[in-house]
Amino acid sequence: MKATQQLRSDCPINYMVELLGDKWSLLIVRDILLAGKNFYGDFLASEEKIATNILSSRLVSLEEKGIITKKKDPENGTKFIYSLTPKGVALTPIFVEMMLWSAKYHAVPPERAAVVYRAKTDKSRLILEIQQSLSGSAKQVF
Amino acid sequence: MKATQQLRSDCPINYMVELLGDKWSLLIVRDILLAGKNFYGDFLASEEKIATNILSSRLVSLEEKGIITKKKDPENGTKFIYSLTPKGVALTPIFVEMMLWSAKYHAVPPERAAVVYRAKTDKSRLILEIQQSLSGSAKQVF
Repeated sequence: MKATQQLRSDCPINYMVELLGDKWSLLIVRDILLAGKNFYGDFLASEEKIATNILSSRLVSLEEKGIITKKKDPENGTKFIYSLTPKGVALTPIFVEMMLWSAKYHAVPPERAAVVYRAKTDKSRLILEIQQSLSGSAKQVF
Repeated sequence: MKATQQLRSDCPINYMVELLGDKWSLLIVRDILLAGKNFYGDFLASEEKIATNILSSRLVSLEEKGIITKKKDPENGTKFIYSLTPKGVALTPIFVEMMLWSAKYHAVPPERAAVVYRAKTDKSRLILEIQQSLSGSAKQVF
């Protein structure tokens, strides 16, 4: 959160909502957190088809809010690697609960069945593994 | 979700995000789920100051998506009581995790300290109590 930005209230739910309460920010965080994506082109290629102008503005906003960080790709100086900060990695339990809720009310596609099953049967360890993998090298959970 | 509406993908995170991934929908659900609010005027009075046209459209959308339900107030035929459906009540773990995440990165106001403390120390029971209170008579957790 930029110091110049005023929150509408001090409610803890509102804090999360003001930082991340839009659909595209949530999907970008999902891409990094669960799908092991780290590049602009990877986010653009996601099934939900984010528009380039929205993607660019959301990446700037997520960086300003301390959720993601970017650094130059050492293998290609013209590309940036986007990663979650510790504050971003700490969102993992929220995303796992979102997955569990959706799985109750909407058919889980076959390629996501394994991770949903793990979330149902072994939630704490799954959360820990995701967080460890994000703190080290990126790993694809989805 | 209306049958006529197409989801952008089958990803379980996307499902939740398409149903609830906007700031005002999340705050209305918070009002019912944690603050024991059930009336239009109560939502309007919340600190974040939702505009009347946005509130009206979000209530319709949340009802269409099966998250909330409305019925006439038996004590006042001109008013509606808005409640969470079982699908809405099932969002509780997501909101409790949102609260815990925010509490890590933003000062908790004194009036929310007790519920945040319970979320930290006794999460499963807090979730159960919220869900039970929502299934019966409304109870204020915040």
